[in-house]
Amino acid sequence: IVSKLPDVGTSIFSVMTQLAQECGAINLAQGFPDYDPPLALQEALARHATTPGHHQYAPMPGLPRLREAIAHKTARVYQVPAPDPATEITVTCGATEALYAALAAVVHPGDEVVVLEPAYDLYGPAIRLQGGIPVYVPLDSPTFRINWERVRAALTPRTRLLMINSPHNPSGAVLTTEDLESLAALVADTPILILSDEVYEHMVFDGVPHRSALQHPALRERTFVLSSFGKTYHATGWKVGYCIAPPALTAELRRVHQFLTFAVSTPTQHALADALETDPAHDQQLPAFYQPKRDLFRELLAASRFELLPVLGGYFQLARYSQISTTESDVAFAQRLTRESGVAVVPVSAFYHNGHDEGLIRFCFAKQEATLRAAADRLREL
Amino acid sequence: IVSKLPDVGTSIFSVMTQLAQECGAINLAQGFPDYDPPLALQEALARHATTPGHHQYAPMPGLPRLREAIAHKTARVYQVPAPDPATEITVTCGATEALYAALAAVVHPGDEVVVLEPAYDLYGPAIRLQGGIPVYVPLDSPTFRINWERVRAALTPRTRLLMINSPHNPSGAVLTTEDLESLAALVADTPILILSDEVYEHMVFDGVPHRSALQHPALRERTFVLSSFGKTYHATGWKVGYCIAPPALTAELRRVHQFLTFAVSTPTQHALADALETDPAHDQQLPAFYQPKRDLFRELLAASRFELLPVLGGYFQLARYSQISTTESDVAFAQRLTRESGVAVVPVSAFYHNGHDEGLIRFCFAKQEATLRAAADRLREL
Ligand SMILES: CSCCC(=O)C(=O)O
Ligand SMILES: CSCCC(=O)C(=O)O
Repeated sequence: IVSKLPDVGTSIFSVMTQLAQECGAINLAQGFPDYDPPLALQEALARHATTPGHHQYAPMPGLPRLREAIAHKTARVYQVPAPDPATEITVTCGATEALYAALAAVVHPGDEVVVLEPAYDLYGPAIRLQGGIPVYVPLDSPTFRINWERVRAALTPRTRLLMINSPHNPSGAVLTTEDLESLAALVADTPILILSDEVYEHMVFDGVPHRSALQHPALRERTFVLSSFGKTYHATGWKVGYCIAPPALTAELRRVHQFLTFAVSTPTQHALADALETDPAHDQQLPAFYQPKRDLFRELLAASRFELLPVLGGYFQLARYSQISTTESDVAFAQRLTRESGVAVVPVSAFYHNGHDEGLIRFCFAKQEATLRAAADRLREL
Repeated sequence: IVSKLPDVGTSIFSVMTQLAQECGAINLAQGFPDYDPPLALQEALARHATTPGHHQYAPMPGLPRLREAIAHKTARVYQVPAPDPATEITVTCGATEALYAALAAVVHPGDEVVVLEPAYDLYGPAIRLQGGIPVYVPLDSPTFRINWERVRAALTPRTRLLMINSPHNPSGAVLTTEDLESLAALVADTPILILSDEVYEHMVFDGVPHRSALQHPALRERTFVLSSFGKTYHATGWKVGYCIAPPALTAELRRVHQFLTFAVSTPTQHALADALETDPAHDQQLPAFYQPKRDLFRELLAASRFELLPVLGGYFQLARYSQISTTESDVAFAQRLTRESGVAVVPVSAFYHNGHDEGLIRFCFAKQEATLRAAADRLREL
């Protein structure tokens, strides 16, 4: 068999989680909470799991009541006209499926797709599986802000799509209104589409707002916006996300979605619709829930030899380890930390297609206070 | 936007289900039961929905305990060496995702894939999205058996994969041991891979056994075998299936699966593992559960003007409608039946890439007795 992704191994997140399990390390590597979804949501799933008639295929684009709830939520949160549930909202098997389906829907062989690095590890392979060509543009170092001149220089007549991600994984950088303006100006006279990965939309700190591509009318017309119930409801294992896109883009996305997974778990969609209907303020509480975790973790590590980078959003903390080791690669350091210190982390070089190494590791702080304290105790000993 | 599937509309199953709803018709179109999964399974999902720690990402290839249970089940049902859960079993978001991922993993641009028609409507588009070329070979009419000479004539040096499906949707034909021998002989000296869609594996009638590609050692070495908990547990809306394939094929499948959906619902996987562990005989009861439905439906329609074709497996009944209409196409007749008689069906021409018309419609008989009787009452009036 000739592999289509010969250079792609198992996702770094799986690799580090497995290593953590083997070493009995505290897992701050893979991004997931060590607490559960709201009890009311768990109970909603239990209720629908035993509701007659809630066990067969949902409609291919998603349960109507869940799409309605998403439309209301979107209008409320972003103060924008509600997306049309019938033609603009598609429920997917996690934001991962939405991302893959969007790429499969619009990237033709030979098309170029701009990826800003560091980037989530699936962007590049998912583009290549469509016969697309990822064009990697580095974010500025060490701010991880977008250098719009560099992006402009990367555009060609073959550029089909440009991918953005805010709040940014792994850096926690957050796009500003000016960034969205720059992006809109850049693509204004081109047919370039945008994919905006906004799965950490409700985790922003210090009063910094999340700016959605949905809030910029000119961008909204050409953008796939991705969101994740897994992130917003501490339920990464439930695998439900969604995509908001204008009707023409949604039509193409659904053409692929119907053959890729067809539909998403019916009882789970009902449970999420219940949660959106009965507790519409849930997402507004997330900044106040996550900011103390970020602050605690940073405070606990202030006395360590890690140099902590600023975090404006998301649930990851980047750290420079040059005071501890100057000779090791990110991968080697991350592995040693997992094995010897009992704290699993992700090497940031895994977010670069060429393994580019900035001497950084990533911690996930979506953890209970006790977990963060136990990890910090180990990390301070270095 | 230039569509990658300009000729592909919404899946016929969604279209007919929507028409059924608009017309208040009894839906015998889309294949799903109108009864619920076993109560113990529903309760298992309710239990895991409220179990702390069961809400985050499952391991990418599937929960270990579910893969173990699948291995045991496979060995028991097919009297074969158990597939290795670590390297040969992958849990997917329905058999649909398994099918798409297998194609995305091994079909390179320009590769030919043999599809036996009539075929499930996603095969062709899913191949084309990989840059592959579907090579359609008709099944014999009206037996829907494979004509192995025709298949042989369709093979070329560019044939990458050959897709089989038994029990067959829509016809209910079932492959024999001799068919598997013919297939093995045909591909013996070639590198051609097989994808065997066996989602109706437990629905076989009149004592006819289902022959799995897993039971033929030479085929097993080159085959992706797909199975569906949705079909086996009357839970099409739960969206869990799996793929069994040798380690080299599984490795490629997982490379794609990790970027396509990453993992499948954790609480749902736990519930299915419970079901397999506590009621391992469930699947053995399915022939005795489904055969009376088939028999009843056929008996009820015996007095109608539909000519019923034989059904050996699956949960679909094909019918020729030439005594009712000779001028209409399958599509026109199916629509009129839905609108005027209040029974929604699928036109069999939708299973042909070129709309080939044999004058056939498909009924789904995975319905409660009362539903089948009500539908038959309407159908007998024609
Ligand atoms: C799908 S596993 C990866 C989870 C995640 O988003 C991350 O760790 O960055
Ligand atoms: C995914 S909807 C189609 C269900 C089905 O298998 C069929 O009707 O053939």
